[in-house]
Amino acid sequence: MRLGMIGLGRMGGDMSRRLLADGHEVVVYDLSEAAVGALAAAGAHPARSVEDLVAQLSAPRVLWLMLPSGTVTESAFGEALAALSEGDVLVDGANSHWKDSCERAERAAKRGVHFVDAGVSGGVWGLREGYNLMIGASPEAFGVLEPALKSLAPAGGYAHVGPAGSGHFVKMIHNGIEYAMMQAYGEGFEALAAYPHAELDLHQIARLWTRGSVVRSWLLELAARALEKDVRLADVRAYVDDSGMGRWTVLYGVEAGVPMAAISAALFARFSSRQTDSFAAKLAAALRNEFGGHALHRLPEGEREVE
Amino acid sequence: MRLGMIGLGRMGGDMSRRLLADGHEVVVYDLSEAAVGALAAAGAHPARSVEDLVAQLSAPRVLWLMLPSGTVTESAFGEALAALSEGDVLVDGANSHWKDSCERAERAAKRGVHFVDAGVSGGVWGLREGYNLMIGASPEAFGVLEPALKSLAPAGGYAHVGPAGSGHFVKMIHNGIEYAMMQAYGEGFEALAAYPHAELDLHQIARLWTRGSVVRSWLLELAARALEKDVRLADVRAYVDDSGMGRWTVLYGVEAGVPMAAISAALFARFSSRQTDSFAAKLAAALRNEFGGHALHRLPEGEREVE
Amino acid sequence: MRLGMIGLGRMGGDMSRRLLADGHEVVVYDLSEAAVGALAAAGAHPARSVEDLVAQLSAPRVLWLMLPSGTVTESAFGEALAALSEGDVLVDGANSHWKDSCERAERAAKRGVHFVDAGVSGGVWGLREGYNLMIGASPEAFGVLEPALKSLAPAGGYAHVGPAGSGHFVKMIHNGIEYAMMQAYGEGFEALAAYPHAELDLHQIARLWTRGSVVRSWLLELAARALEKDVRLADVRAYVDDSGMGRWTVLYGVEAGVPMAAISAALFARFSSRQTDSFAAKLAAALRNEFGGHALHRLPEGEREVE
Amino acid sequence: MRLGMIGLGRMGGDMSRRLLADGHEVVVYDLSEAAVGALAAAGAHPARSVEDLVAQLSAPRVLWLMLPSGTVTESAFGEALAALSEGDVLVDGANSHWKDSCERAERAAKRGVHFVDAGVSGGVWGLREGYNLMIGASPEAFGVLEPALKSLAPAGGYAHVGPAGSGHFVKMIHNGIEYAMMQAYGEGFEALAAYPHAELDLHQIARLWTRGSVVRSWLLELAARALEKDVRLADVRAYVDDSGMGRWTVLYGVEAGVPMAAISAALFARFSSRQTDSFAAKLAAALRNEFGGHALHRLPEGEREVE
Repeated sequence: MRLGMIGLGRMGGDMSRRLLADGHEVVVYDLSEAAVGALAAAGAHPARSVEDLVAQLSAPRVLWLMLPSGTVTESAFGEALAALSEGDVLVDGANSHWKDSCERAERAAKRGVHFVDAGVSGGVWGLREGYNLMIGASPEAFGVLEPALKSLAPAGGYAHVGPAGSGHFVKMIHNGIEYAMMQAYGEGFEALAAYPHAELDLHQIARLWTRGSVVRSWLLELAARALEKDVRLADVRAYVDDSGMGRWTVLYGVEAGVPMAAISAALFARFSSRQTDSFAAKLAAALRNEFGGHALHRLPEGEREVE
Repeated sequence: MRLGMIGLGRMGGDMSRRLLADGHEVVVYDLSEAAVGALAAAGAHPARSVEDLVAQLSAPRVLWLMLPSGTVTESAFGEALAALSEGDVLVDGANSHWKDSCERAERAAKRGVHFVDAGVSGGVWGLREGYNLMIGASPEAFGVLEPALKSLAPAGGYAHVGPAGSGHFVKMIHNGIEYAMMQAYGEGFEALAAYPHAELDLHQIARLWTRGSVVRSWLLELAARALEKDVRLADVRAYVDDSGMGRWTVLYGVEAGVPMAAISAALFARFSSRQTDSFAAKLAAALRNEFGGHALHRLPEGEREVE
Repeated sequence: MRLGMIGLGRMGGDMSRRLLADGHEVVVYDLSEAAVGALAAAGAHPARSVEDLVAQLSAPRVLWLMLPSGTVTESAFGEALAALSEGDVLVDGANSHWKDSCERAERAAKRGVHFVDAGVSGGVWGLREGYNLMIGASPEAFGVLEPALKSLAPAGGYAHVGPAGSGHFVKMIHNGIEYAMMQAYGEGFEALAAYPHAELDLHQIARLWTRGSVVRSWLLELAARALEKDVRLADVRAYVDDSGMGRWTVLYGVEAGVPMAAISAALFARFSSRQTDSFAAKLAAALRNEFGGHALHRLPEGEREVE
Repeated sequence: MRLGMIGLGRMGGDMSRRLLADGHEVVVYDLSEAAVGALAAAGAHPARSVEDLVAQLSAPRVLWLMLPSGTVTESAFGEALAALSEGDVLVDGANSHWKDSCERAERAAKRGVHFVDAGVSGGVWGLREGYNLMIGASPEAFGVLEPALKSLAPAGGYAHVGPAGSGHFVKMIHNGIEYAMMQAYGEGFEALAAYPHAELDLHQIARLWTRGSVVRSWLLELAARALEKDVRLADVRAYVDDSGMGRWTVLYGVEAGVPMAAISAALFARFSSRQTDSFAAKLAAALRNEFGGHALHRLPEGEREVE
C-alpha cells in the first residue's frame, strides 16, 4: 500500500525502512531535509510539506504521525487534519496520552476522518525484529491500515484492541508493566551482587536464567547483554530517566482505584535515583537526632547545597 | 551416567524420566511403592531403601534428593550422608534455604562427601522443555554431575554459579523476581480490565504482547494461556498461596540492606489476598469515624467474626 | 467582626457556632431552611439567598463558603463573586483542589475581590477544640480575616502559609500525611493482634503509648478511644473510603517527582480494602497454576461473579 | 524501693537519676568507673562488680540491665542470673529481640528468677518527661517492680502488657510504627518543599500543625524544633541509620503474614539513603539503553567505583 509518514526520527525512520523493505510506497516528510533525503535514498518519496505529502496520496489517504508526543504531535495533528478529507485515515504512533487520543478521535470524526492511535513497542530493535502494535481504531480504519501493520510487526504482533484511545491506553499500561519488571530484575540482581559468601557472576546468571527459567523474558536477555559488557555496571550511573508513561500509569491507577504497589515502587525508585539529597531522609535523620540524640551526618562545609 | 534419585513426586519423577530418556541409568527410591513401581516401569532401577539405593551405585556415587524442603529433606540428608563414602556427591534439589545448604555442605565435607545445592526452575513444564539449573558446588562435584545436568536442562540451561549454598541462594532470588513480575502483570491486567471506555480483550492483549513487545516473557505466555481459558478469570479465587521463597528473599533483603520495594509489594499483596478482614483497614475505618464522623461500614449481625 | 457563612453542614454549622460563641456576628445561608433556622436560633442572622446575605454585610464584606468541594463550591463561588464588590474577601473552606483555588483567585482578582483558600482540619472535634487553619491569601485579605481565624482556631492554630492556593495545597499534604500515619498505626496494631504467645490488649497498649512514647499523637488517642469501645474492632468492616485528598497528594507527588512510597501504600491499601476480588491476585493465582501446577482456589458455583 | 542498675550510659544513667530523684535507692555498676562515680555523686550506691552489686541488695533483689542489646546484654544476663537467687527479679531494658527475651525468661525460670523485659521509649527526653514502659513479666514480678516503674514513667506511662517477651515485642512494633510515621512526615515535608508557586515556610507549617490538626504528634513537635534551627535542613545529610528494630518489625511481618507496606517502605527508604549507587537503578538505566537507545549517564572517569 501507499502511505505517508511524518516524523523521521529513529522510530519513524526505521518504520519507513521496514515498510519499504516489504514493498510499500512511503511518502515521507520531516523538518530535517537530511532525514527526508536519507529516506528518499532508501526508496521513499520525499515531500516538501504536509500539504505536498497529502497531495502525493490518494483516497482513502493514510497518514502516519511519528513525532514526539505533546505539542509537536498536537500541531502536526492539526495541520494534517486540515489537509485530509472524509474517509482518510490519520494515525498517531507517538506515546500520546490516551485521553488526548480520545479527544483527537472526536475532532477527526467531525471532519469524517478516521483517527487511529497506534501504541508502538520495540525500540531500537524494531527495524530488525518488528514492532509490537496496539491499535485503537474503527474497524474500517483498521482494515485500511492492516497491510502496513502486517509489515511493521512480527508474526502475530499487531492487533485491533478497541476503539480510538485504547491503543495508547494499552501501550501506557504496557510501559507501566515494563517499569515494574525492570524494578523486579533490578532488586534481584542487586541482591545477587550482595551475596555474602562469593562474588557471583551476574552475567552468567542472567544468561542462565534466559534458558528455561520461570523468569525468562526479553528484558532479561537485554540484561544479560548489558552485564556481558560490564558485569558490575561499574561505569553506569545509577540515574534513571523517565519519559512519562510510568507516571501516567500510576496517575490512571490512582484515578481508577487500581492498587499499583509494584508499578509505583518502580516509578518512585526512579525519582529517588535522581535525587542527590532526599528531603524526607534529611528530616528522618534530623528527627532521630531530636528524639534519640543519634548523631547527624553533617555535610562538609564545601558540599552544602546552595539554596 | 548412573545416579540415584530419592523423591519421586512430580519434580523428582519427571526429572528421572528426562534422565532416562537421555540414556542415563537412574536408581530410584520413594516412600511410595507405587511411585517407585511407575518409574521402574519406565526403565529405572527400583530400590527398597536409601541403603539399597546407595548399594546399587558405584564410586563416586551421585545421589539426588528431590523432596520437600525442611524436615523431610533434613532427615533424608542425614540418612543419605551416613550411607555415602568419601568422594561421593550428594545433591539437594529442593527449595531449601541457602543457609541450611551452606551448613549441610560443611557437615558433608566433614565426611569427605561433596554437597551440591541445585536450584531447579521449570515446574510442570520441565519434563518437556528442560529444567533451569543453578548449581552451587565444588568444581569437582560439578564435573561429576555435569552429564546429568546437561540432560536435565535445555541448551545452556545449567550453570555452576558458585560454591555450595549459592545454588539455592540464586534460586531464592529467582523466585523473588518471579513474585514481582507476577505482580507487575497483575497490576497491569487489572488496570486494563478497568478501562472505562470499552471492555478490552485481555487474552488478545496478553497474546499480542508476547510477539515483539518489551514486556514479552514466558510468564506472559502463561498469562495468555490462562486468559484464553477464562478471559476475566471469573471462577479463579483471588487467593494467592506462597511456598516461602518470596518471604526468604525479603528477609534476606532486610538483613543485607537491599531495598526490595517491588518484591515486598508482591509478597504483601499475597498476604492481603488471603485476609478476609484486614485489621489495619478496620483501624483506618474506625479512625475516620473518630476524627471525621465518617460512617462506619458495620458488619451485618450474622457476619461478625467469631473471636 | 461580621461575616457571612454559606453552607451549614456539620463543618459550616459548627464553625458558625464557634464564631458566635466568641462574639462575632454571622450571617448564614444554606439551601436547607432547617439548617438556617437552627443557626438563627443560636444567634446568627438568617439570609434567604446569597444576595440577601451579601446585602447584610458591609464593605469590606467577608464571605466564607463551607460547602462540598467540586461543582457545589464552584457554583456558589460564581454566584458569590458576582454579588461581591472590589475589596471584599471571599473564602473557600472546602477541601478544594489547590489548582482550582489558584484559578479562582485569578478570577476573583479580575473583579478586585480577594480570594482566600482556607485548609481546615479538625473534623467533629473542631467545635470544642478549635480548627487548624492553613490560609492562602494576600496579606490584606489575611489581615481582614484574622479576627475570625483567631476565634476559630486554638491558640497558635492558624497561619498565613502563602499566596492563594497554598492553603489548600498545605491541607492536601496534611491529609496525605494523615493517610500514611493511619497506615502506620494500622500495620502496627495488626502486628500486635497477631502476637503468637498471648492475646495482647490493644486498647491498653494504645492508651499506654499516648503517655510519653515516641509515637504518641492525637490519632493514637483516637485509636485508643476506638479500641476502648471494641478492642478487636469486631464489628467494624475492613472497608476504608477516601474523600480524595490522598489521591491528590499522590497525583501531585507523581507530577512533582516526589517519591511517596508510604503515602501511596496507604492509598492503595484503601483501594484494596474495597475490592472483593483483586484481579491482580486472580492472575497471580492462575499463573501459579500454569507454571507450577499449584492448586487453584476456585469459587463455589454460587459465588462466581456475574460479569 | 532499692534496686540495682547495670549499665550507666545515657539511658541507664538518666533512669538512675530519675529513680534517685523520686526517693529510690539505686545501686549502680558500669565498666566505666567514671560513670559509676558520676552516679555516686548524684546519690547512688556504687558497686565494684556485678557480685558486689547483688550483695548490696536484699531479697527479692531487683536488678535492671540497661546495656546495648546483643552480646553485651547476653553476657551481663548470664553473669547476673548466676548471682541472683530464687524469687529475685532480673529486668532487661535494652532493645533486645523479643524471641531472645522469651528464651531468657525460660532460662531464668529454671533458677526460680523472674525475668522481666522492659520496652523503654523516651530517648533523650526521658529524664525530664518520663519514660514510656512496656513491661513483659509475671504478675508477681510486675508487682515487685511497680514502684520503680511509677517513678520512671509519666502518669499512666507504664503497663504490664503480657508475659515475658511481650514487653520487647510491643516495643519492637512501637519502633516499626515510628519508622513509618517518620516516613509519612518526610514525604509530606518533601512535597511541601517542592511547592511550585512559592517557597513555603516548613517550620511555620510544622508548628502550625501541632496546634489542633489531625496530624499533630510529638514527632511533629520535634520536626518543628529541627526545622526551626534550619528550615531547609541545609546541612543535614540525607543519610539515615537504623538501629535494627525496624528491620525486626518487617521480619516479623513477613513471618507472621502481616502486610507491612508502609513500615517496609520506611525501612527501604533508609537503606536507599545510605546507597551512593543503587545497583537496581544502574540496571534500569542500562536496560533503557539496551531496548530504547536512551542515553546512559556515565560516571566521569575519576568517580568510577573501585570494585
